[in-house]
Amino acid sequence: MGNDALLTKLREALGKDAVLTDTDVTESYSRDMMPLAPSGRPLAVVLPSDVEGVQATVRACAEAKVPIVPRGAGSGLSGAANAIDGCVVLVMTRFDRILEVDPGNRLAVVQPGVVNLDFRNAVEKHGLFYPPDPSSYDWCTIGGNLSTNAGGLCCVKYGVTTDAVLGLEVVLADGSVLKTGRRTVKGVAGYDLTKLFIGSEGTLGVITQATVALRPLPQAPATLVAGFDDTEKAGEAVTRIVREGLVPSLMEIMDASSIKAAEHYLNTDLGTGDECQALLLCQSDSGGEVARRELAVIEQICNDCEATMAYATDDLEEGRMLMQARRVVLTALEEYGIWLTDDVSVPRTRIAELILGCQRISDEVGLRIAVVGHAGDGNMHPTIVYAPGSEEEFQRARKAFDDILEVALSLGGTITGEHGVGRIKREWLEREIGPVGIRVHRQLKQALDPENLFNPGSMFSMA
Amino acid sequence: MGNDALLTKLREALGKDAVLTDTDVTESYSRDMMPLAPSGRPLAVVLPSDVEGVQATVRACAEAKVPIVPRGAGSGLSGAANAIDGCVVLVMTRFDRILEVDPGNRLAVVQPGVVNLDFRNAVEKHGLFYPPDPSSYDWCTIGGNLSTNAGGLCCVKYGVTTDAVLGLEVVLADGSVLKTGRRTVKGVAGYDLTKLFIGSEGTLGVITQATVALRPLPQAPATLVAGFDDTEKAGEAVTRIVREGLVPSLMEIMDASSIKAAEHYLNTDLGTGDECQALLLCQSDSGGEVARRELAVIEQICNDCEATMAYATDDLEEGRMLMQARRVVLTALEEYGIWLTDDVSVPRTRIAELILGCQRISDEVGLRIAVVGHAGDGNMHPTIVYAPGSEEEFQRARKAFDDILEVALSLGGTITGEHGVGRIKREWLEREIGPVGIRVHRQLKQALDPENLFNPGSMFSMA
Repeated sequence: MGNDALLTKLREALGKDAVLTDTDVTESYSRDMMPLAPSGRPLAVVLPSDVEGVQATVRACAEAKVPIVPRGAGSGLSGAANAIDGCVVLVMTRFDRILEVDPGNRLAVVQPGVVNLDFRNAVEKHGLFYPPDPSSYDWCTIGGNLSTNAGGLCCVKYGVTTDAVLGLEVVLADGSVLKTGRRTVKGVAGYDLTKLFIGSEGTLGVITQATVALRPLPQAPATLVAGFDDTEKAGEAVTRIVREGLVPSLMEIMDASSIKAAEHYLNTDLGTGDECQALLLCQSDSGGEVARRELAVIEQICNDCEATMAYATDDLEEGRMLMQARRVVLTALEEYGIWLTDDVSVPRTRIAELILGCQRISDEVGLRIAVVGHAGDGNMHPTIVYAPGSEEEFQRARKAFDDILEVALSLGGTITGEHGVGRIKREWLEREIGPVGIRVHRQLKQALDPENLFNPGSMFSMA
Repeated sequence: MGNDALLTKLREALGKDAVLTDTDVTESYSRDMMPLAPSGRPLAVVLPSDVEGVQATVRACAEAKVPIVPRGAGSGLSGAANAIDGCVVLVMTRFDRILEVDPGNRLAVVQPGVVNLDFRNAVEKHGLFYPPDPSSYDWCTIGGNLSTNAGGLCCVKYGVTTDAVLGLEVVLADGSVLKTGRRTVKGVAGYDLTKLFIGSEGTLGVITQATVALRPLPQAPATLVAGFDDTEKAGEAVTRIVREGLVPSLMEIMDASSIKAAEHYLNTDLGTGDECQALLLCQSDSGGEVARRELAVIEQICNDCEATMAYATDDLEEGRMLMQARRVVLTALEEYGIWLTDDVSVPRTRIAELILGCQRISDEVGLRIAVVGHAGDGNMHPTIVYAPGSEEEFQRARKAFDDILEVALSLGGTITGEHGVGRIKREWLEREIGPVGIRVHRQLKQALDPENLFNPGSMFSMA
């Protein structure tokens, strides 16, 4: 089947408005938010509205031997949703319905095109909580979250996307529909196919529905901020907080570069002093006296680790203002150039070493690197800033990006904590998991997608 | 390679004391605790002490085309570790070392032969908590827990085994060693191979090491017990407790038959009255005032649901005595015959229907069925009692066992919540997950174990 025949077939099956070929439109669906990743020119963008539409697309593309790149909103940071030349981009945003919220069983059934924030708000009306909260939560979709096993600020206490999912509906490479998992809290009937598809970055199938477990809505958070004139002292505080058995609902760290950018952007002094090398932000959502006690213990630990300042509040608005410094960092960095954010996880005891490593790399490449990170789980986002239009600075930024991965691996960490491998860390995946690991990946991909239909060349190559 | 050559090769590689062929010995390693499951006569029992020994066994058996059945202590309840004729039983109990406990990162590295309770005790010395607590926790091994994705009483608050595992070391069918996962809290580098092997019941590889995430040690539990003269009222209480947003650290239910057996065995009156149809046992490990408040809300809900009695205590010893009724049920049932315990999960709102269904089945088959279950997560263990030596009663028990699965599926549940599929629920697995699900299982098995070396015929058949 030639390309024209494929397009005709897709239009017949899905309707004309679901098959787009205008290059202005297809271009707009050809990339996610990662500047490092290559992207190609799609043959078409297809927007199905139901499972039958996905099945028809998959079957037609399989017959025509045209690869499929599934995607959601395109908020990804690894190029995993980037088009390749001549592919069909399968956009799942029209799967935008919340099919069920069941408070008695604390679960919901949701389509992949629903925006994370919309879903959070919908279940909150039932007094329920969907924890995964990637930074892009106001525009990323549940489907993208599932495909990348997205995290966020919640993970220190509530885990990542995979921890919240009970079951999936997936269209496989032959167009058949697989239902994985269950609606019950526990279940061990067969292999855990659900968690195999979660985080597989669109390489194994197209997720068309998810059944997710919800939690009770937590209490409004109390907030603590602490400054340190020495990164290692901040790292020691994190280690002691973990060792003390505390589980804050949020524990973020900002390095000196992030603090300065935020202060400049907000035109304020965070009260940390000129010598501040690290800021720790913690929240407890345990409520009332318990939250106050938890933060008091954390404050004491920070003081024991020679914090230059430590301040706790259970005033919600004041907490929001303190958290603002963390939230504005990426926007603040835009004043200095284009940012390129990396994503590594290290053991929680090695956070200071990672930050100091990034400072060394910053000096070496001569570019600003600001580190923000989820200290509670060791997932750090060193963010490199380079001048727009300068290919030379871009190449230095790319080198810094790789050097950071090198440091993370040397600390016993991983090359990606939550953004994924996609089209930018394929060689690094191979390095992290080794030849046996890559071989097993290829065997599983070959088993489920023998013609390499879904997102070929992303994550790892078949050769 | 013939069997004699294989045995010679194994003895050369592992030492004579690691390769046992005396039929008295091999017989003792040929079954787990599930009376329904068939078992065969192994060619040999092999007890390796290191990864190289496992690799040598796997390679030699592959060459000789002799199937391998991996096992731990043999506490399983699905026959998943039962020998088949002419197989090598690969016993992992000599992998009995805790390699590392890291309180700063709240993780441990453990070998599969370590007994669950020994591991719990070892990490507790560091103020840490390993949640999975199957009933057999004083003799089952971590490796068996991993292979079956074991649960326990902790699951309502702390999840099952898979939720606690960061990474694995696995010997594959070609003898190569795969390392999955990581030492960090978060990580999305590649497919989630860790969770694919967990719960795969020894069909995909031999687990030789696990890196597990630990939690802070919880507070000593406060305990509540409530009696109901109507099963549906107890079920309604469970639903309301869930909907209210409470997460007790334990929530167990006993039906009338379980209560009577426990009372008879303990020679005591649980204070529930003659008409008691269901007993609810809840614990909170939140500590102090918070635990008291949580149980007070639960008590109020029970009273709103017309509990005939409800009593809460934060006295540890009194709590232990109240919990004893739950703990002795299986032992108590032995006074009436041999017990055969089933394992289903249903949505938490359907627990009463499951219990009432079991009472109906009990009447139909004319056998005592006592239901105990993890009400907090809907995982129920209806336990059928039949006369020893009576083939006719055994057949009726088998029928009841299947009928219970039927009821669970009709309630939107699953055929196994934590015991696994093994050799007793293969047809039921196919029924629950359907032809596409079974096909995907076969494709994955074929991909990782093309010669069907590991535990062939368990869980599902390749044909």
